Amino acid sequence: MKDAYVAPTLPQPYLLFLGDVVEPGYAKTAFGLRDWAGSKCVGEFACDGAAVSTGLERMSPAEARARGARSLVIGVANSGGVIGDTWIAPLVEALEAGLDIVSGMHMGLAALPALADTAAAQGRRLIDVRTPPTGIPVGTGRKRAGKRLLAVGTDCAVGKKYTALALANAFFARGLDCDFRATGQTGIMIAGGGMPMDAVVSDFEAGAAEMLSPDAGSDHWDVIEGQGSLFHPAYAAVSLGLLHGSQPDVVVVCHEPGRTAMLGTAGYELPSVDETIDLTLRLGARTNPAIRCGGVSFNTARLNDAEAAKLIAAESERLGLPVADPIRGGAAFDRLVENCLG
Amino acid sequence: MKDAYVAPTLPQPYLLFLGDVVEPGYAKTAFGLRDWAGSKCVGEFACDGAAVSTGLERMSPAEARARGARSLVIGVANSGGVIGDTWIAPLVEALEAGLDIVSGMHMGLAALPALADTAAAQGRRLIDVRTPPTGIPVGTGRKRAGKRLLAVGTDCAVGKKYTALALANAFFARGLDCDFRATGQTGIMIAGGGMPMDAVVSDFEAGAAEMLSPDAGSDHWDVIEGQGSLFHPAYAAVSLGLLHGSQPDVVVVCHEPGRTAMLGTAGYELPSVDETIDLTLRLGARTNPAIRCGGVSFNTARLNDAEAAKLIAAESERLGLPVADPIRGGAAFDRLVENCLG
Repeated sequence: MKDAYVAPTLPQPYLLFLGDVVEPGYAKTAFGLRDWAGSKCVGEFACDGAAVSTGLERMSPAEARARGARSLVIGVANSGGVIGDTWIAPLVEALEAGLDIVSGMHMGLAALPALADTAAAQGRRLIDVRTPPTGIPVGTGRKRAGKRLLAVGTDCAVGKKYTALALANAFFARGLDCDFRATGQTGIMIAGGGMPMDAVVSDFEAGAAEMLSPDAGSDHWDVIEGQGSLFHPAYAAVSLGLLHGSQPDVVVVCHEPGRTAMLGTAGYELPSVDETIDLTLRLGARTNPAIRCGGVSFNTARLNDAEAAKLIAAESERLGLPVADPIRGGAAFDRLVENCLG
Repeated sequence: MKDAYVAPTLPQPYLLFLGDVVEPGYAKTAFGLRDWAGSKCVGEFACDGAAVSTGLERMSPAEARARGARSLVIGVANSGGVIGDTWIAPLVEALEAGLDIVSGMHMGLAALPALADTAAAQGRRLIDVRTPPTGIPVGTGRKRAGKRLLAVGTDCAVGKKYTALALANAFFARGLDCDFRATGQTGIMIAGGGMPMDAVVSDFEAGAAEMLSPDAGSDHWDVIEGQGSLFHPAYAAVSLGLLHGSQPDVVVVCHEPGRTAMLGTAGYELPSVDETIDLTLRLGARTNPAIRCGGVSFNTARLNDAEAAKLIAAESERLGLPVADPIRGGAAFDRLVENCLG
């Protein structure tokens, strides 16, 4: 199935840039790319003093270019979302070596004169994956051909991207015709394209989701990364526009057992998995009356093996649905995959 | 109660510009300003050949300026949302006469060199009310002081702005401390400020609504103009962000009896008033558990007096709530107002 729309199309393979960070927590994008798009990463590059490594071979931009790299990806974040002075020289070096630069940071790359001037002189591109494409249409709600799965969540940062990627890989492994549809910055870098849903003007939110998962063959699956939560007081608009525009046949509810407070809110409690299934099906039925819940994905990183297995079994029994942790995989995850496929 | 935030603050009073339109349907903004902000309009101005009038005195920009006008408002729309060549000369004349220009059109005023150059030379402002302010924060869901009413709808263009304005006027008439909070272009022009909710980036949608109706005195009412519909496949994201961020104590459901298909969709049926009340209260309870429905506002323009009175009485009985058409007013509207105040 040829893609009718994937934007922006990022220049791969990548050289992963780690800046000067010393905390692995700030290098989540680089780790995500290593884990989910490792075949598209030729190596890593960092400032002197950086104390984090992805384990990929460290090399200069010129070496990476010689090995086929087409862009440097900023694989680290810092609390302000800005590009520090210490990063300018290595980023200029990358442009001069013939690499484009791909960034998911809040600060636009072209706002830095040294980068803008060098890119112009070298004929290289500065690509901000947070910038939506132009020409996003207003949604229509028209039913599109093909099958769609959307990962939804009880909160932000509960494993929606990871779940969608694991399900897409499992679909691929079964020989199915499938696309992972990215909706956030790291997902877009992994997929090489997608739609930064949280950066789209709200009037076009559902239309953007419609654009992201166009008509496809009747056996084709789009596995769509979720954003936010319908219960989040700041981000529910993003989640609802994505749900309506995606018109999923199947949703998988992602949850971190043990989390009780919603991220970044004034004391909001997490909704239950049951409430999340119920509200998602009610709202999603507006654009796809056949919507169903394929199962539940738990992030059990804080539990040991025995605790996780016990909880997964108990919750699966209670809900009458497959429950699995995609990272742990196993028979529980196979059951989740099979139930999503229906 | 002093407003903590109303942006942009528009320069009033206005001169209403009617362009060269010949169909009254294209001059809805001008008629809305005449009806709801008549004391802020000194007159109207049009190209030769215009066949529409608001009934206000026709005058040149120089005359309007002499009578105190501070801006010319583009009170007409056309299907493309663009500013035609025939409008350039009269708009330049207005700038040269000392008026700013206020526009709600899709096309930015500054994109027209003749306007940009004249405005710069004259020290005048070109104000696009569709442009959101900078610095909108992410929402938090924190409960704010004061009371809030939000008009919601079974569809777009069912009378939400009209209903909110009529309720705000009724609250004023009862001596209450009240602000009308505008969320669309015409509403913003009427109020002289507000938040263009459909133009806000989706990640900030709820935060924008929080910004629009800040903490206020415990007896103060914000009466907030609604947008879209939670059931609209294109615009529900706007509606949910506005509902969450507004955290209304009271909602009034707006509906046009007899309409069966949602505007601009691929064959979507209108939801019932009952379904709209139910879903609005369920979703709104997330940020205000005390939310309640104050009643229902019908747009009965297509019915005669007897038909409207019969339908309003029957629906009020069936729903157990006040139902009224604000344009018809009367005892039914008084009951709606009283029930909103609780």
